Amino acid sequence: MLVEKKSLILPQPFVTEGGATLSSAPVAYEEYGNPKGPVILICHGGLSSNHCAGKYSEKDAVAGWWDGVIGAGKPFDTDRFRILSINALGGMYGTCSPMTIDPMTGCRYGPMFPAITMRDQVRFAAAFLDAMGVDRLWCMAGPSMGSMHTLCFAAMYPERIERAVSVATAARMTASGMAMHHLMMNAFKADPAFHAGWYTPGVPLGAAKIIAQIIKLYYLSEKLYKTLCADTVPHGPGAQLKRSANTNAFINTGLDASVACYDGNSFIATLTAINSHDLAEGFATLEEGVCRIKCPILLINIDSDHEFPPYAAEEIAGILNAVRPGQATTRVMTSMWGHIGCIREMEQLGACLREWLPSVS
Amino acid sequence: MLVEKKSLILPQPFVTEGGATLSSAPVAYEEYGNPKGPVILICHGGLSSNHCAGKYSEKDAVAGWWDGVIGAGKPFDTDRFRILSINALGGMYGTCSPMTIDPMTGCRYGPMFPAITMRDQVRFAAAFLDAMGVDRLWCMAGPSMGSMHTLCFAAMYPERIERAVSVATAARMTASGMAMHHLMMNAFKADPAFHAGWYTPGVPLGAAKIIAQIIKLYYLSEKLYKTLCADTVPHGPGAQLKRSANTNAFINTGLDASVACYDGNSFIATLTAINSHDLAEGFATLEEGVCRIKCPILLINIDSDHEFPPYAAEEIAGILNAVRPGQATTRVMTSMWGHIGCIREMEQLGACLREWLPSVS
Repeated sequence: MLVEKKSLILPQPFVTEGGATLSSAPVAYEEYGNPKGPVILICHGGLSSNHCAGKYSEKDAVAGWWDGVIGAGKPFDTDRFRILSINALGGMYGTCSPMTIDPMTGCRYGPMFPAITMRDQVRFAAAFLDAMGVDRLWCMAGPSMGSMHTLCFAAMYPERIERAVSVATAARMTASGMAMHHLMMNAFKADPAFHAGWYTPGVPLGAAKIIAQIIKLYYLSEKLYKTLCADTVPHGPGAQLKRSANTNAFINTGLDASVACYDGNSFIATLTAINSHDLAEGFATLEEGVCRIKCPILLINIDSDHEFPPYAAEEIAGILNAVRPGQATTRVMTSMWGHIGCIREMEQLGACLREWLPSVS
Repeated sequence: MLVEKKSLILPQPFVTEGGATLSSAPVAYEEYGNPKGPVILICHGGLSSNHCAGKYSEKDAVAGWWDGVIGAGKPFDTDRFRILSINALGGMYGTCSPMTIDPMTGCRYGPMFPAITMRDQVRFAAAFLDAMGVDRLWCMAGPSMGSMHTLCFAAMYPERIERAVSVATAARMTASGMAMHHLMMNAFKADPAFHAGWYTPGVPLGAAKIIAQIIKLYYLSEKLYKTLCADTVPHGPGAQLKRSANTNAFINTGLDASVACYDGNSFIATLTAINSHDLAEGFATLEEGVCRIKCPILLINIDSDHEFPPYAAEEIAGILNAVRPGQATTRVMTSMWGHIGCIREMEQLGACLREWLPSVS
């Protein structure tokens, strides 16, 4: 499937929870499938683009990150559905963010971009749907940050969503996950070239190379490092030093490509929004906040994910099913890819969707 | 108990596995208890000093890191035993390391310090015992790197050790643990002020602040962050942002004190040595390497430790007990402190020692 990058400008100014106004805000999105079909909205993980399926060109080495489940005959079937995938507010791939030119000044927002919350991101997605003339979603789905956007959208706009799929998720951002985000933000801020956010746009910061390694370490698992870096070295003199060197090569592999995409200010805006995620915000209890979700929901976490362990999905399901038995279904994917399993384990994800979608259709 | 820092100079040049000679090598150590008693050697974790018990002055806020189990009437009883605690080769607390003056040049070794292995560190500890006139250890014990020194010493000098206690341990360095060490070494090397190891001694590098945060994130647990940073915030408007701020404050707390102690070159020398840890090195199989350990051994890992999970201790015990049933005993400590539980859970550690030591005495 060949796809293309699209964008629109929100017709109305967008006002954040903090009261800042973003005028003429661009939204980067992609659109696949049957233009007259029911709409599925896909939201991306915090560090991904919104390129979730297909290729821009036959020459692309890899397709979008959920290509295994989006396409003709796949669980999110492009023969039947109209699939929209947006880059979140604050994102690094074309949507309004610190990288965007502020129409009021003619300069990039940079570090002057307002602090945004996850609820801002979700209201922004709703404003995008309004602009597209989409009232109601047949389904919304996403991994990681996208899974939280899905939960929040389902809670904030229950009348606009018929079913939801959250992969690698939690009702509120986990505590050590927030600490990990701060570590990465602190690394950016401590880079001598960061200049309080007034660095030269497009020139990767040295800190980004360390941050990319932190991500590889924290999001993956001992099983992965053992399988790919250690067990591949045959026993013999100096074997352990070779294993050690392999782990270093692994955390450095592919860095240049990924690092080139990390804009420090956008990274900080996005992680700050993720850290604000809490379905209880504005409600008396977490239970009350979670129970705003009215549609059937599939919650899939990964056994080796340090950031969103399986019990984080069970917590949501427990709350919902206590009130409306059968509303929530949980699954656990087995993976050595840790958190990254949410965009890696396409066979398991596909099997979960093929089993669950007909049960709620 | 008041204690003091001691040191000696090894009377013989020390030659590393790689063939480098360290002449007049200093060894920093402490000594407690009954000078005529059987000897217990304590080895420290990779980032700790060898100050494991007592205080230097009544004014010290805290005692040494295993003070809960070392002292009069404690499991490692100073009324009965002579307790020695050495700073490892490459360490940052007075033993021969990159911070030491090379007697051949009159300058610090700095980045010219030879690469050392864990076996070098253990042979160095044996040379220290020779210099002290100690032939045989009643027991050797340590947390983290010290646990590995204990395993290696027991394997390399079975005739010199009667019992061993390894806390937070593995038969070979874990794969993701090696990756984490490389991440930290890479952060030092990427610091613009590192100058390939020729930085100004004593001036903390900016990277050390990020490294200290990495350590806090990786070595602790979600349960700890949730308990100390999240659950302490009452529900209400903006609660999640307060929780987020708490996690950031937590990973930055105490940084200045700990960071001042991190010498980049010594840190790299030490982590490189830890990464070389493999009881199989020089033997046909891991089983053969592990089975060189002949004495009774107590292996204690921590339930929330990402770096040395309980199964790493079980692996060692399984190998030993298959050949000599009952030789190895395993225990799991419950802790929210993750890897740091090895110097935190003194009540549980004390209980394990009080149960096990009489059973092998």
